[in-house]
Amino acid sequence: MPKISEEQKAARREHVLAGARRCFGRYGYEGATVIRLEQEIGLSRGAIFNWFPTKEDLFLELAARDNDRIVSIWIEQGLEPALRAVLDEDPEWLGVYLGVAHRLRTDPEFRKRWDARAPKGQEGQIMARMRHEQAAGVLRSDLDPEQIGGFLGVVFDGVALHRAAGYEPPLEVVLDLVRDALDPSRARDQSP
Amino acid sequence: MPKISEEQKAARREHVLAGARRCFGRYGYEGATVIRLEQEIGLSRGAIFNWFPTKEDLFLELAARDNDRIVSIWIEQGLEPALRAVLDEDPEWLGVYLGVAHRLRTDPEFRKRWDARAPKGQEGQIMARMRHEQAAGVLRSDLDPEQIGGFLGVVFDGVALHRAAGYEPPLEVVLDLVRDALDPSRARDQSP
Repeated sequence: MPKISEEQKAARREHVLAGARRCFGRYGYEGATVIRLEQEIGLSRGAIFNWFPTKEDLFLELAARDNDRIVSIWIEQGLEPALRAVLDEDPEWLGVYLGVAHRLRTDPEFRKRWDARAPKGQEGQIMARMRHEQAAGVLRSDLDPEQIGGFLGVVFDGVALHRAAGYEPPLEVVLDLVRDALDPSRARDQSP
Repeated sequence: MPKISEEQKAARREHVLAGARRCFGRYGYEGATVIRLEQEIGLSRGAIFNWFPTKEDLFLELAARDNDRIVSIWIEQGLEPALRAVLDEDPEWLGVYLGVAHRLRTDPEFRKRWDARAPKGQEGQIMARMRHEQAAGVLRSDLDPEQIGGFLGVVFDGVALHRAAGYEPPLEVVLDLVRDALDPSRARDQSP
């Protein structure tokens, strides 16, 4: 086999991922059979699984990238641009996420891999950002960043589900109300 | 055929619905084939489709009942018990909802039927409840009930998605923050 450069390797890997994303979007996770992956990517299973040993690896790599993109926006620019970025996701692809809910609930190994899809340290960076906002007085500080993150996780999921089902999430009012909920003036008096 | 009483008719209809729910929960909407519906319900397709002419009718009747149950709790007891009631839903069955997101987005006829699943007048009753709470000063009145309802729809969806994926939604912190977001003291000064 002729040698290929690192750039060529990277380009091929991207080609595989782009085709896999289209295939998952079109047929869902379960429906994306090896034959359909071959057709959509335009490579044999041998060539595809040279890059990603299983369909699950392909899927988790794509999920990790989206997660990274949204969370990076949150870390660098804040919550509002991150929530807006969910609306830029392909609804077809968001639907694929919803389709793995069953596996997440029933397959502990898959769930472990899914939970690990965020690059190491990313969650710590979100927490650090929130603690910084708390210290700066722009985020209420009577709740742990973990608790606020739990609430925001529900909001992100709700926006994603609306989007996947073709309903326009009422993003402006959601942003206004989330902002109000997290405003420092909301903090409850914690003295006994 | 021997005559059967109205009670017997109602009981048979319930039997069909209960089996269909199990079947959808186990196999998903697409996977709930006629053969599997027959097996799970224990009746022939003729007997099943005597009650519900299509699989879609079965599914929408089940969805309408859940919708009615949750929304009735909201109307009669308020938001908090309604959100708690989502946690009582079978995660398997919630997953079936997620599985129809694709059809909701791409099949206008299905979506129309889905949107019409709430009993007539129920949405008006929720709006009336919110307007009453606004007048009583327990719900902020600088937003339309429709806007507040849009935000709460996102929260409901997020809780349902967490639940379907087997993640425990952080319900107490969600309830606290929703309460704070909607508190009348949050209302923005609307003078120019």
